Amino acid sequence: MEQEEAALAANEAFYAAFNQKDVASMDAIWADSPDVTCVHPGWNLLQGRDAVVESWHSILTNPGQPRIVTGGATASIHESVAIVVCRELVGGSPLVATNVFILESEAWKLLHHQSGRVFGAGT
Amino acid sequence: MEQEEAALAANEAFYAAFNQKDVASMDAIWADSPDVTCVHPGWNLLQGRDAVVESWHSILTNPGQPRIVTGGATASIHESVAIVVCRELVGGSPLVATNVFILESEAWKLLHHQSGRVFGAGT
Repeated sequence: MEQEEAALAANEAFYAAFNQKDVASMDAIWADSPDVTCVHPGWNLLQGRDAVVESWHSILTNPGQPRIVTGGATASIHESVAIVVCRELVGGSPLVATNVFILESEAWKLLHHQSGRVFGAGT
Repeated sequence: MEQEEAALAANEAFYAAFNQKDVASMDAIWADSPDVTCVHPGWNLLQGRDAVVESWHSILTNPGQPRIVTGGATASIHESVAIVVCRELVGGSPLVATNVFILESEAWKLLHHQSGRVFGAGT
């Protein structure tokens, strides 16, 4: 349960960095792994830490970027991996996100993020 | 490397069950875990094994469901978890998918799937 809470706290830190447009914190949140991957809503897959961090730099320094509201986060812990799934709301658009964290030096670091629009029934 | 190949084979089996509209195989591919989650393109989050398997039953028994073509799969292995990311093409629409597998009785089983449309540049 402690690791679940720690993973959910890491997830909240990710979205706090987003809303604070804090490029340095966003960089530190990502894992130090060549396997880092990211899928922004509607974007193609980004592979590798440099490409992913650079994309976040572009997003966070965009003055038109709306804030993000999140909710309903759940964490599924499997040894050194936490799979967090949550809802996002950006500029009025509902999305769902997958955030996969891995333990690095006992801290949960983001390995993979995918966010996608929810269009269907039940939204 | 062996586990990476095994995880990629499990990923291929998932898409083979999709194209063969094989409901029993699709059921067996999913993990026996209460944490099973799934996000179909544009759908809201489905939580729990029953809801997820039922959604696949609806999709696979839909005579209008187009085939899926996949490519570019990569697997990142972390102990008993494999994060597979790949491209999908369904009815001419490009998508990206996250497939998270966990080891159950030494077999890779699907814990979480998210697929979302790619709209942006570079597709």
